[in-house]
This record gives sequence, C-alpha cells and structure tokens, in this order.
Amino acid sequence: MLGKAIGIFDSGVGGLTVFKEVADLLPRENLIYLGDTARVPYGSKSVKTVQRYALEAAEFLVDRGVKLLVVACNTASAVALEQLRERFQLPVIGVIEPGARRACASRNRRIGVIGTEGTINSGRYPQAISALVPDARIFSIACPLFVPLAEEGWAEHEIARLTALEYLQPLLKAQIDTLVLGCTHYPLLHNTLRGIFGADVLLVDSAEETAKTVQQLFCRQGLENPDSGGRREFYVTDVPTRFERVGQAFLGAELGRVVQVEIG
Amino acid sequence: MLGKAIGIFDSGVGGLTVFKEVADLLPRENLIYLGDTARVPYGSKSVKTVQRYALEAAEFLVDRGVKLLVVACNTASAVALEQLRERFQLPVIGVIEPGARRACASRNRRIGVIGTEGTINSGRYPQAISALVPDARIFSIACPLFVPLAEEGWAEHEIARLTALEYLQPLLKAQIDTLVLGCTHYPLLHNTLRGIFGADVLLVDSAEETAKTVQQLFCRQGLENPDSGGRREFYVTDVPTRFERVGQAFLGAELGRVVQVEIG
Repeated sequence: MLGKAIGIFDSGVGGLTVFKEVADLLPRENLIYLGDTARVPYGSKSVKTVQRYALEAAEFLVDRGVKLLVVACNTASAVALEQLRERFQLPVIGVIEPGARRACASRNRRIGVIGTEGTINSGRYPQAISALVPDARIFSIACPLFVPLAEEGWAEHEIARLTALEYLQPLLKAQIDTLVLGCTHYPLLHNTLRGIFGADVLLVDSAEETAKTVQQLFCRQGLENPDSGGRREFYVTDVPTRFERVGQAFLGAELGRVVQVEIG
Repeated sequence: MLGKAIGIFDSGVGGLTVFKEVADLLPRENLIYLGDTARVPYGSKSVKTVQRYALEAAEFLVDRGVKLLVVACNTASAVALEQLRERFQLPVIGVIEPGARRACASRNRRIGVIGTEGTINSGRYPQAISALVPDARIFSIACPLFVPLAEEGWAEHEIARLTALEYLQPLLKAQIDTLVLGCTHYPLLHNTLRGIFGADVLLVDSAEETAKTVQQLFCRQGLENPDSGGRREFYVTDVPTRFERVGQAFLGAELGRVVQVEIG
C-alpha cells in the first residue's frame, strides 16, 4: 500500500524549487505537486483573490489525502497561511517562517527582503524576522520583473543584471549582509544577485530552508513513510506544455507526466 | 432612457488603450469595460483556457445588454473570436483584423508582428495579413517581457530599450517597413520602438485601428445612440486598486469608479 504523500502547491512553476529540495531531503516520500497555471501569477493579485485561490489549491491536495501541506508560493504563504491552518486538520508549512529563521544569521542585523508586490505589501517577512531579532533593520523591495525574466530564461542575462541593479540600489546603500529571496523564482537569479552583492552577503533561499523545516517536522512528529517508494505526481490547472518546458529549469530534471485538473 | 452600450473586454488593464480610442471617436456612446484582472495575463496561457475565459468575460457583458462586443485583448482575439461570434447574436470585433488591414500600407511588403506568446503562436496576424497581401513576408516575434515592463512603468526606461533591441534584432535585419504592435500594452512602448526602428517604419497601433472599425460599423449598421450621454462603466474581477493605479497610464485620464465582479 502506498503511504500518504506530501502535498506542495504554488501559483505555477516556481514552487518546483521547493519540490526539488524536499525531494532531495526526503527521497523516499511520495510527493504531489499542484501548479495553478491557469491563474498564475498570484504576486500581483489582491489578498482576497490569493486567499481564495490558495484555499482551492489546498483543497485539491487535501482531497487526495496528503499528510502535510507545503505552501511553496511566497505570496500565498504571506497572505493565506493562517486561513489554511484554520481550515485543514493537518500540518501546513509556508516558506516565510523558514526563510525568516535563516535570515537571523545576519551579523550586522541589516537584512534585505525581495519578493512580489503581494509578498512585500503583506509585510510578513519583516514581521517574522522582527519577532526573532527585534532590533533588525529590514529593507523590503518588490521586484516584479524578476519572475518574467526568470521565466524567459534570462535570469543570467545582462538585462537581468541591469534590472537587479535598478531595483536593489537601496539595499546596496543600506549595507545589508543578508538578502532573503522571497519568491520561488528568485533562486534562478542566484548568480546575478551574487554578482551584485559579492561573496559576503548571505543569500537566503526559502526553498532550501522550507525543505529543512519539513524534514525536521517529519522527524519530530514521526510522519515518515520510509517504504513509500518516492512516487512523484504533478498537476496543473492549464494545459501542461509550458509547465513541462519551463519546469525543467526549476527542477533541474525532467518532470515526467503532468496532468491537467480543474480546481475552484 | 439610456441607450445600449458598447462592451469592451480585456485580460486586464491593457484594453484601456482600445477603450480610450473608442471613447475618442464615439464620445457620446455608453461604454462598459471589463478587465479580467483575477486571471490576467492571457498571453502565456493555453488556447483552451483563454477561450473559456473569453466566453465568460463576453457573457458578463452580453448579460448587461451591450449592442456590440469589442475584444480588446489580442490573445483572446487571436484564439476565441470565432467562438464568440458563434455563441452570441451581436457584432463582435477583435483587434487582429483591423491591425492587419492597416499593415497592408507596407510598401516593401516586409511586415513585422510582435505580441504575446499566445498571439504569436496562433499565427492569426500572418494569416489575416496574407489574406490581404498574398506576397507579404511576415516576421513574427513574441516579446513576453514587454507587458511586465509596461506595467512596471518602465516602457521608456533604458532596460526596455535593451530588451526591445534583444527581441527585435531579426526584424531590423529583415528590413521591415511596418511593425504591428499586436498587444494592447505595446503602444506604451511607442517611443522606445520608434527609437529603435527610426521614423520610416510604420508602427501599427491595433487600438486606433479597432476604434475606426467600430466607428465604421456604427455608421454602416446605424448602431449609433447620439443621445446616450457617454456613460462609462469599469468592471474588474480582482480588487480595483491596482487597476485604478496602472489604468491611468493607459487611459491617459482618471478612471472614476471601478467595480469588482465575479465571472465564470
């Protein structure tokens, strides 16, 4: 018999960075991924609309009997996590708290946060970081062009570098020593950001931190299914073609079969 | 009594360029605009999903008793126009045919078309142009970053110029004398494109051409309501804040009240 799976959802393809890290740390667990590609992006939409979409996405996964829900989308984590926890009787892990915890490694307590408009406007990263490091100075900037640049395959293009320089001047000026990549697409811009901030600024990848949090929870709550077989399932709400193509860059591997479903 | 209105819909805010041109040519007509901002963009989504969204948007306007439907979205015009014409008993005007007609002014019959992935992949512009000028050479390029650049307010920024240069090299090389701006956002990049192509290339703005087509149809079919009062109504599917803010740049004026509705 197959063990219960971990359910992971995102507005689209970006959450595959989280999926990849979870799969690396827990290779024998079954994983189900849902990308809401018919309604992507969430980052420029309103709190209410993102909450509705997140509930519908979570419902799809819960109906498939997952034992744990990972909200791989920063925007949905920022505005819908409490609602999901209230609604569903299973552990729900978002990407904000794990990223915020890692950011506390900052030595000068000057921390930058970048993300979508929705994530930055929510103020959830500063809130989560301040709860852990009350005297941290936090500098938040929305970078709406980073997602389309990453999806265009231009994450390391000169235009991405110039765009990043334009957005991130205030963070350079603020002399941050830690930068939270508060969007699942941004790890693709890692080299571009490293080029701008140099070797000394810690780049926090929420995907890695979230996967570690999932692993810790599994240890603590005894949620592991070591005999599950490591099945992977991918679902999307629009036709899979584009997801399959762009998804490879995020997963660093071929996805296998992707199934289109209706939600909401 | 109020006369019947013209209904105009788009995936979001871009169709306001069409709205503006129609309002300029037919100032006394009543106009209803719907922007499907909860599901924007259409340009990167599949044919089937865009068809479903377009039918739902059109239905909303038809239910409000419009006498004419304008599909201001290039992607929806490219993939859903036939379906809309079959479904609804009223004139339906898209933006592709008017733009294609204008492109026939080309003297060297070397015509460029730029648009979203959905519009370019549909092949509808080349099809419509070739039907009018069978020996035209048509060069089509998708420019996915133009929409986010325009929405970021960077349409005339150096980064927009570099992005355009990157996308449009093949069109410069092809020595086109006519360029169809096949997306409602692109008129905002007019100056940037003019800088790249120089004064001699005709830039075809589908919005203007579509408005002229509406006006001609009104003349021909006697659809005018000269006493309607020029009422304007704006509806969106997500909360209006962002639409109101970004919309001003497209309309060149304040929008007044914008109402959120559910469709689909």
